[in-house]
Amino acid sequence: MLLRLFALAVLALPLAAPAAQPAPKAASARVTSPDGRIAVDLSSDPDGRPIYSVSRDGKALLAPSHLGFLLADTPKLDRAFAVTQPRTRSFDETWEQPWGERRQIRNHYNELRVTLKETAKTARRLDLVFRVYDDGLGFRYEFPQQASLPQLNIREELTEFVLAQPATTWWIPAGEWNREEYLYHRTPVEEVGIAQTPITFKLANGTHLSIHEAALIDYSGMNLTRVEGRRFKALLTPGLDGVKVRRQAPFNTPWRTVQIADDAAGLAMSSLILNLNDPNVLGDVSWVKPMKYVGVWWEMHQDLKTWSSGPRHGATNENVMKHIDFAAKNGFGGVLVEGWNVGWDGDWFGNGDDFSFTRSYPDFDLEKLSAYAKSKGVEIIGHHETSANAAHYESQMEAAFDLYQQVGVHAVKTGYVSDAGEAKVIGADGKRHYAWHEGQDMARHHLKVVTEAAKRHISINAHEPIKDTGLRRTWPNTIDREGARGMEYSAWGNPGNPPEHEANLVFTRLLAGPMDYTPGIFGMKTRAPDGVATTWAKQLALYVVIYSPLQMAADLLENYEANPRPFQFIKDVPVDWEDTRVLNGEVGDYVTIARKDRHSDNWYLGAVSDEEARTLKAPLAFLDKGRKYTAQIYRDGDKANWKTAREDIVIEEREVTSADTLTLKLAPGGGQAIRFIAR
Amino acid sequence: MLLRLFALAVLALPLAAPAAQPAPKAASARVTSPDGRIAVDLSSDPDGRPIYSVSRDGKALLAPSHLGFLLADTPKLDRAFAVTQPRTRSFDETWEQPWGERRQIRNHYNELRVTLKETAKTARRLDLVFRVYDDGLGFRYEFPQQASLPQLNIREELTEFVLAQPATTWWIPAGEWNREEYLYHRTPVEEVGIAQTPITFKLANGTHLSIHEAALIDYSGMNLTRVEGRRFKALLTPGLDGVKVRRQAPFNTPWRTVQIADDAAGLAMSSLILNLNDPNVLGDVSWVKPMKYVGVWWEMHQDLKTWSSGPRHGATNENVMKHIDFAAKNGFGGVLVEGWNVGWDGDWFGNGDDFSFTRSYPDFDLEKLSAYAKSKGVEIIGHHETSANAAHYESQMEAAFDLYQQVGVHAVKTGYVSDAGEAKVIGADGKRHYAWHEGQDMARHHLKVVTEAAKRHISINAHEPIKDTGLRRTWPNTIDREGARGMEYSAWGNPGNPPEHEANLVFTRLLAGPMDYTPGIFGMKTRAPDGVATTWAKQLALYVVIYSPLQMAADLLENYEANPRPFQFIKDVPVDWEDTRVLNGEVGDYVTIARKDRHSDNWYLGAVSDEEARTLKAPLAFLDKGRKYTAQIYRDGDKANWKTAREDIVIEEREVTSADTLTLKLAPGGGQAIRFIAR
Repeated sequence: MLLRLFALAVLALPLAAPAAQPAPKAASARVTSPDGRIAVDLSSDPDGRPIYSVSRDGKALLAPSHLGFLLADTPKLDRAFAVTQPRTRSFDETWEQPWGERRQIRNHYNELRVTLKETAKTARRLDLVFRVYDDGLGFRYEFPQQASLPQLNIREELTEFVLAQPATTWWIPAGEWNREEYLYHRTPVEEVGIAQTPITFKLANGTHLSIHEAALIDYSGMNLTRVEGRRFKALLTPGLDGVKVRRQAPFNTPWRTVQIADDAAGLAMSSLILNLNDPNVLGDVSWVKPMKYVGVWWEMHQDLKTWSSGPRHGATNENVMKHIDFAAKNGFGGVLVEGWNVGWDGDWFGNGDDFSFTRSYPDFDLEKLSAYAKSKGVEIIGHHETSANAAHYESQMEAAFDLYQQVGVHAVKTGYVSDAGEAKVIGADGKRHYAWHEGQDMARHHLKVVTEAAKRHISINAHEPIKDTGLRRTWPNTIDREGARGMEYSAWGNPGNPPEHEANLVFTRLLAGPMDYTPGIFGMKTRAPDGVATTWAKQLALYVVIYSPLQMAADLLENYEANPRPFQFIKDVPVDWEDTRVLNGEVGDYVTIARKDRHSDNWYLGAVSDEEARTLKAPLAFLDKGRKYTAQIYRDGDKANWKTAREDIVIEEREVTSADTLTLKLAPGGGQAIRFIAR
Repeated sequence: MLLRLFALAVLALPLAAPAAQPAPKAASARVTSPDGRIAVDLSSDPDGRPIYSVSRDGKALLAPSHLGFLLADTPKLDRAFAVTQPRTRSFDETWEQPWGERRQIRNHYNELRVTLKETAKTARRLDLVFRVYDDGLGFRYEFPQQASLPQLNIREELTEFVLAQPATTWWIPAGEWNREEYLYHRTPVEEVGIAQTPITFKLANGTHLSIHEAALIDYSGMNLTRVEGRRFKALLTPGLDGVKVRRQAPFNTPWRTVQIADDAAGLAMSSLILNLNDPNVLGDVSWVKPMKYVGVWWEMHQDLKTWSSGPRHGATNENVMKHIDFAAKNGFGGVLVEGWNVGWDGDWFGNGDDFSFTRSYPDFDLEKLSAYAKSKGVEIIGHHETSANAAHYESQMEAAFDLYQQVGVHAVKTGYVSDAGEAKVIGADGKRHYAWHEGQDMARHHLKVVTEAAKRHISINAHEPIKDTGLRRTWPNTIDREGARGMEYSAWGNPGNPPEHEANLVFTRLLAGPMDYTPGIFGMKTRAPDGVATTWAKQLALYVVIYSPLQMAADLLENYEANPRPFQFIKDVPVDWEDTRVLNGEVGDYVTIARKDRHSDNWYLGAVSDEEARTLKAPLAFLDKGRKYTAQIYRDGDKANWKTAREDIVIEEREVTSADTLTLKLAPGGGQAIRFIAR
């Protein structure tokens, strides 16, 4: 015998008959987006559990969904709340990104805040805050300082997201905890298992949603587990032990975000995640420099060189100088060098204790190479592979950054390769503990890296990172990261990245922020069974489609030297943008994006397809009215096909104006890249 | 950059090119069922992770599935193992149940044992043991005493179950942790979220599987979470903190079980769960007595009486004596009385500290009533509602059992109603902690209740219990339990139990063991919108279909007194069986079961349908050849229908022999009950 309603009636008036009890009258409040289309309703169920629901144009998107916490060794914090009078406010400002996919971002929302206080003796309190934008919403829990709840030991967050409509869903699994590098699943919502975020839904009525989080600071990363039907619950990444988050009040959780748009293109235009982060705290960040780079890297993935020392060592003075010369000649700002430091010769994958972040291999002279690079107007991009041994890294990190600062390295690629083992962190007890990539300890670690780097004017490009939640707004030296299957899977993956991969990324992973995807491959045969499964034109298009402030030209230098005409686009394309327009797209199928250079009047366009040939219309209304542009077009040739003719590219020019509409013919696995030079 | 195969190659031979590494040759072993149809293959993947797979008649049922553990603050125990030479053995014995659904059970299996030892310095060891039966398999992890792993702090079990074929799945959700009382979902396997066990699958090739566990002792209950596709992982019930199981080596985990049959009927015939439990440790258990009972109970669920004190108190001397008289007159062995003890008047649901298990309400005289019952050849069935406050219960439990022993009570129904809060247990520190229904602490609690009760010759019928894993074999006073939606949902549920509910239970929950479902309702109008959604004939059939050694006649006494003809079947039907045959069935649709009385030559048959009318064939080949039987048939009348004519029942007799085949016409929501009297 157990029934919630029955039991509660007994609770409320134990002497009376259960049937005689009316349900408690639920408090409720509503907040809408500035344009009035999105409405969030907050109320409570008969148990006094807070529930929220979301609709748009009167159509339900999220059905009533519960909120709350499971705390360690103390009752759930999720019900029997008294609710204060809701407080609302509006906010509207436009702020400027120091670098980014657009210069100006409007932060315009209506906010609803309620204070919940337990009616039980414990009388614990928390605030629920909803911010509703035209492009979605964020909500978070805020814990004030209070005697009845001085310390939060969170075992699980009970936040639910109940989809109100059937939906197609794009997602990658969670549960291994140290991996983000999966191929995307496309399934009905009812077939999702445990998913990482961002998770993207196309609802039955065509509306697109993406659930993610913003401002993941000193907290555990959120995954979603589908309990049944279309009901998802938050699943926080495990911590050292079963307490997933330890915080002292006052504190706020990260924002739980739901980006909402009429179509996939609208979703990719959203700035919600950034808006929900705090403004820049670093002041002048002109030292954070978006740039293109080449590197001692693809040759290792192609098994031509090694990270480790020996006869095939990649990071030699000679090889690095060759790359510096190439970068200088072709206008690239940086040269990444992996495998430069001592530690790659042992069991680095499972351990990381052997890495030195200050000692070079004997055939790599950091000072000399840095000076040589500087003399050529180029910078070395540093590299710190930690194999997720954060404790070991932190023991050397400051010295390592000092060294880079001395020699003039201003960007460092970090790496957290780990699969079998768990990340190691230093706990509050001063000892080493195991931890997961996206647990609270690693959230702290990653922020520590960024703030220590900032002191030395170094930007961080983390690979195998914690997920992106928009912290680049607050710490703009968080310049880039990986966090999804990158191009290297096309070097050796089995399977490699399929043709649909990038059209998935734009509407899933990339909603979280930029990704160092490392495109630009012309040598299409690799150790992966299908090689690089795109056309050349698509490789060029990726420089526009995949936003990355550090954008690599990843291929072997000789492949660029041998193909100067298509390489010209890579030389021309910028990495910092005045504006971005997503012209069209369907998740996992295709996308066309136009971006305006931040430092000229030129525009760039990239379009990519999946395995299907497509003909897309690209109206050029984004161009200045009345102005003439020379369009340098890099398109798939008539026979181009990712399976049979990847190199079939046509490069041509034409005059265009904003009144023109281009017809983009994309080959199977193809794409198109266009540079619009303002006349 | 992160890829397991790549990384491992580096691990193995860091100086060599990844591409050059051959995969390690996997050790493998096979064990088959005695009939040779089921094969279990154990091997390891390229990471040295143990994997098992299961096939039947050469057709894959479970695809390669991983095994292992996630331990607190120390590396995963799941890979880089060296494997000993497999050891096999065969076992075959037939044992007798002191009471049960059949007297004789054959325990016949082939066993495979391997010892895994880490190749890393830690060199931790464990054994994997597989037992393969004709009706499925069980496997468990065994930890020997060892210096390198003296204490196991298990955060999660990494056991996987990967279905090799598409399947229809019947399941209830997990994740609230204190509830088993859900309606069953019937979905494709790909739509399962987080599920409790038993979970039942009908594979594309028709084979039926059920995954569950056996011998859950001092460990946390296993749920299954679907990660993606058809891949499930174990999800242990949370503990006090994030360590879900704390055990010192040596110890063995519970058995992870996969029951396998050609059809649903075969699944319901399986004795696998019992066979994987240890034999009876209580010696003579003739004091454990299956019986039918009535009780002061349905009138509370119908809101005619109250558990709490006051003018409508149910557990009064007068009312109990009325029930004793009725029981004596009609041959029932027991009278359950709920609400007899002090504690029901306050906030018992959220707390339980107010309950006394020895102090009666003033209008209930335990000694007098027990003596009165005894004088009539009847026993009081005791009742201990704990509201899942195990700590409080344990503080009084021994005194409470002493009291019941003194007055001659030999069966106690316990209750663990809890939804909002968490069960309270005493931790190793002697303090009270919160815990979940199926966590390790509650597993210990429930076994403590059973063993304390056994000392006083008391049997336990736990409601809102820990799940059944066959412990009744080892402790036969574990006589019954609930652990699913019972009949009371048809008293006040919204929705109540639908017509398909019992046809779901037989092939899901009941695979774990008996259930105190409390059938036998003739008063079909209740507070539930659909009332009791069956015909009368189906209510009678449930006494055969749902195996329960304590079988209640749950309705108000006046409903039996007013309907003596159908009530006759309830009076006649036994509760202890010599043999059981499942004649036909489809999960959630219908089922027909025949059982032979353990104390006569009579057979009984029950058939139930879901909302569909059905015509089923019941060959009587189970009857003794050449013998004549009088079949007393209780069948749906021509107009019977759970919606419109529930009381339309036809009671008739005919002569039959084992050569006959009966045609059972079941109405929508209907059933049929037959008593075969040997001549």
